Order: sequence, then C-alpha cells, then structure tokens
Amino acid sequence: MAFEGKDERARNVRVEDVAREAGVSPITVSRALSTPEIVKPETRERVLRAVEKTGYVVNTLASSLRSGRSSFIAMFVSNIENPHFARATRGCADALENSGFHLMMAQTNYSARLEADFVGSVLPLRPAALIFTGVVQAPTTKTLIRSRGMAVMEMWDHVEDPLDMLVGFSNLDGGRLMGEHFGRAGFRNIAYVGRTQDRGAQRLAGFREGLAATGAELGHVAPLDGHPPVIADGAQALRTVMQRYPQVDAIFFSSDVLAVGASLEAARDDATSHVAFAGYGDSGLAEALPVPLTTVHVSSYEMGFRAGKMLLRRLAGESVRERSIVLPNELRIRQSTARFIN
Amino acid sequence: MAFEGKDERARNVRVEDVAREAGVSPITVSRALSTPEIVKPETRERVLRAVEKTGYVVNTLASSLRSGRSSFIAMFVSNIENPHFARATRGCADALENSGFHLMMAQTNYSARLEADFVGSVLPLRPAALIFTGVVQAPTTKTLIRSRGMAVMEMWDHVEDPLDMLVGFSNLDGGRLMGEHFGRAGFRNIAYVGRTQDRGAQRLAGFREGLAATGAELGHVAPLDGHPPVIADGAQALRTVMQRYPQVDAIFFSSDVLAVGASLEAARDDATSHVAFAGYGDSGLAEALPVPLTTVHVSSYEMGFRAGKMLLRRLAGESVRERSIVLPNELRIRQSTARFIN
Repeated sequence: MAFEGKDERARNVRVEDVAREAGVSPITVSRALSTPEIVKPETRERVLRAVEKTGYVVNTLASSLRSGRSSFIAMFVSNIENPHFARATRGCADALENSGFHLMMAQTNYSARLEADFVGSVLPLRPAALIFTGVVQAPTTKTLIRSRGMAVMEMWDHVEDPLDMLVGFSNLDGGRLMGEHFGRAGFRNIAYVGRTQDRGAQRLAGFREGLAATGAELGHVAPLDGHPPVIADGAQALRTVMQRYPQVDAIFFSSDVLAVGASLEAARDDATSHVAFAGYGDSGLAEALPVPLTTVHVSSYEMGFRAGKMLLRRLAGESVRERSIVLPNELRIRQSTARFIN
Repeated sequence: MAFEGKDERARNVRVEDVAREAGVSPITVSRALSTPEIVKPETRERVLRAVEKTGYVVNTLASSLRSGRSSFIAMFVSNIENPHFARATRGCADALENSGFHLMMAQTNYSARLEADFVGSVLPLRPAALIFTGVVQAPTTKTLIRSRGMAVMEMWDHVEDPLDMLVGFSNLDGGRLMGEHFGRAGFRNIAYVGRTQDRGAQRLAGFREGLAATGAELGHVAPLDGHPPVIADGAQALRTVMQRYPQVDAIFFSSDVLAVGASLEAARDDATSHVAFAGYGDSGLAEALPVPLTTVHVSSYEMGFRAGKMLLRRLAGESVRERSIVLPNELRIRQSTARFIN
C-alpha cells in the first residue's frame, strides 16, 4: 500500500488528542468534521488546524450519521451531455441556492435498469427528494419510490399520472406546431430524421397531425434510435436522406443537435442549399448558425428552476395543489425555413 | 396538505401487514425497500407487489442506514454545461460500470465557497471517494478532506502537490504549442481573448512563451473573466477586438466555445475573413464548422475514464504508485489557421 506511512501515523492519534490541541471538547471535534455546517467557523478553523498538526484521520466506518433526512436532493439525468438537461440542472441548482438543500446528479443513459439501480442505491442515503429529467420508467421503480412517501419531481414530458409532481411540456404539441408550419410553408417532399421512440414517437406523431391539418403529408422517415445523437450524426443523416429521398425539400430533425450537424454540412455543400431544416430544443447554437435554425423552443432552464421551487415549497410543508405544470411550446421561425416562404 | 388521503391510509399499514401479504418476514420487507441489492429479485418483486396492494409507506426517519462506506463516489464538477466536463463525467461513469460503485455529481460553479459547502454536506453521507474536475481550492477544504483519509481524485490541471491522485494535463504546455504554431505560421498582429485567471492564466502564459520562442509577440489581450462563456460571447468578443485592434490577423481564444461563436459570426461577415482563429478543447463542433477550427485537443473522456479506473484500483485495496498522470497535449491544425499558411 503506497500510503502506509501516513496511515500508520494517523492510527495512533485519537479524537481526544485533536480536542486537546484545539482546546475544545471531543464532541466538538467530531461535529466539526462530520457536520461542519452546525459549528461556528472560528471553531471549525481551530479544529482543522489541530487535525492538520496531529495528522488525525477520521475512522469513517465508525462515524455515525446525523438522523433525519439528508440535505441533498437526487436528480437523475438521462444524458448529462445533452445541453438542455445540463441547463435544467443549472436552473434547478439556482432555485435551491441558499435553501440548505444540495443538488446531486446521476446519469441514467435512458436505461430503466440503470435508473432502478441508481434509485435503489440512493434511497438508503435518505435524499430529501428525487428529480427525474423524464418520467420514471419501470413499474417496480415507481412502487419502490411510492413506498417512501417522499417528494418526487418528474420532468420533460406530459403524462396524466405523474408519481407525485411534474413540470414538463407536450412533445406531441411541439411536433404538431412544426407540422403546421411545414404544411403552411408549402413544403411538399417532407422528411423526418431522428428518434421514433418515447419522446421522439410523440414529436413524430404530432408532426404528422400538424401536416395532415394543413393538407400535407410525410414522405420519408429516417429513424435514429441508437446512442444519444452527436453533431456528426446530423451530417451523416443529411447525406443518407439525399440519397434515399432525393426529391426532399424540407427536413424536421427530432433534436437541434442533428439539425445543427446537417446545417453545418449544408454550409459546405451547395447541393443541399434548397432544403429547409428545422430542429427541436432551441439550443444556443440554433440562432448562431450561418443560416439560423427554425426550432421548437424548450425552456430547459425555466423547467429546472420551477421544478426546484415547487419542491422547496413541498419540503417546507406547504400545500402544493397544482401538482402538474405544463409549459407552453413556442415555435421559433428563423431563416432555415423562412427563406423559402414567399 | 394536498395528499392527505394517501398519507392517512398509509399510516394504518404496518410492515407486518406487508410481510403477511408477501409471505415473507418483516425484516425481508425492510431489506427489500432499504437495500434492494441484497435481496433476490423474485423476493423483491413479491414485496413490491405487496407494498402496492397494501399502500404501505416507509417511515423514512426511522429507517436505519447500512453500515460502512457508501457505494457512491461524489464528483464535483465546475460547470456541467461545459461539454468537456460533461464528457469527463461520462468517461468516469463508464469506468465505474458494473463495479458496484455509483457516480453522483454536484456543480460548484468554480466557487471555493460552494465547493466547501458541498464537500461539508456530502462527507456525512460517507462517499467511497471524491473526484474534482479541477484542483481543490480552499486550504480548509483540503484539510477537511485529508482528515478523512479517503481516496481523492483531482483533474484537469497539473500541480506538484495533489491532495491524493491526479489525472490532468498542462495548460501551460497547451498554450505554448499554440504560441509556437502562431509564430511559425507568420502571424504578426496577434490577440488573445478569454480567461486570464487560473487555467486561463496558464494558457496565456504558455501562449506568450511559445510566441517568444519563435520571435513573435502578443499585440492585444481581451480578458473575459466573468460567467462561463457561451457562444454569443465569442461573436461579441470578435466585434470588440476588430474595433480596438483593427490590424489583428490572428486570435487565440481560451476555449472552443468562444472560438466557435467568433467563427460562426465571421461566416456571416466578410470583413473578418482574413483573420485566423484558434480555440482550446476540441469540442465536437470544432471539426464540423464551415471553416474547421484549429485547437488544442483535450481528451476529456479519457481523462474521466482513467480517473475512474485509477480510483477503482485504489478502492479495491491495490497499491497505486503512480499518483499523478499527465496526459499529453495535441495540437489539431485545421483550416481556420492552415488556410493562411503558404
């Protein structure tokens, strides 16, 4: 063991030695190390200096926990590399600032198995509440959570039966807005590229409805249901659609990241300059592109912020009558489609 | 209270009722709910069905914790919206897969105060290890962590005295590589835009060294030390530099996000088409831009993955002699500078 020297020395120092050095009681030393937030800053400083001087090492296995629920709230994030989820965690953390609660996050990779695994390992730590950037997947996970009678926040979707509370939006409505826009714009050879399951299925269904309402229809679907999409997937998807559906005049991508990849690819290739693009999400890049991107705006930060505030009210014991908040969808029409409309 | 109905019903159900319904002992019910990982899946299913049927709610405050350290590793991330840090958390989570350890993350916003606050609130939960996407800031936080004698991983930097283990790279070397490249390319009116503190200070110092080594020098510095940068800041910074230092022929941005913003702005404005750009990080966008971006490649995923594997060896009780891994910097020369080199 590489650090034996330090460990050996530390084993001979007892909490009483630290207390004597710091001029405080042993229980104060213990508190300063395990629950520093309840100890005066000056006392804590003195204890820490004594710890440093004596080389004391806490016996972690023997140290006992505070009773009651923890001060942390566990947030389960489907994919932390998705900037929308990252922004939602920021909004949520901002809402919790100075509340005494701390946000801790875990990644579930959209996997029901990982989600169940994480929930099972987090519950014994007695989190004050649970947040999910989606709706909880497995029925047994739902039951396990319900059995705790704790505050739970689901997000990013609109379901009739949330576990407890929900702040989300309707993916069906978002897709429908885009379908109506494409139909009214007069596009006639229309493709959909992206997820066709879960939220993707809803966006696609809404898109078809919106097209139908304006007398248009969907000519081609290119499903991308594997790993979370990256920029390069959008460029690749554009090339594939141009081959398989050469008459295409407009493409709706199920997420901005795909549309951005396609848009940057198109900027290098005149052969696709007659094709309209749209995305979903309104990431920071959508507006900054050489041809700014039409997209459905998702208020990720606001969703996280409102979820955090709603949880705080519940944790403070207030009555929360409005259990479910559905944020409106907003279509942002920019040059990527607008330049083809007379 | 909005959920009184459910709470009232649940209060009358005891763990014995659930046990009878499931045909198991009360202690098995308790284990299935608090430490599901040690209960056979079939038994757990049976208990969960009984919980659902009876409407039982666990008395969270009375439930006791498992002894020993937790199965979770706490990762403190400076800014989760930075795609490099997000990718590092992914690498780390992948390294921990199937190890029995779970990664939980917290955001510190580069704040020493928030970092100290988080560390203090997480330690009582007995994490198995701590990871930081940087080096620990406040001396008292360092002392508090050292007093626990636990496994700690610092990242993203190269310091002589890590708290315990470190996987990082040298920001000074990265800046120097870019300085040498700019000097050799023959640029003569050179600007630096971005952070001038912490890691930014090192990149800037290295950049100056690299320029000096090739007989060039820095003509203009535009510091951006406020909030973490976003795409729009890069576009704004480009406009400002063009006004204040109109003779500029090459700009080194301290991060890709700024360089991407400037590059997309330049794609709309011919007045800046004679200016070379470079960034730092090599995000997915750098290569996808209309004019692909020269940058210093940072292996974020690999850094996270190696940090995770190194921690696992330590947690398994293996000797870890190589406490500090410094990953090499790689310059990726692309069209944003290469097109000006004869």
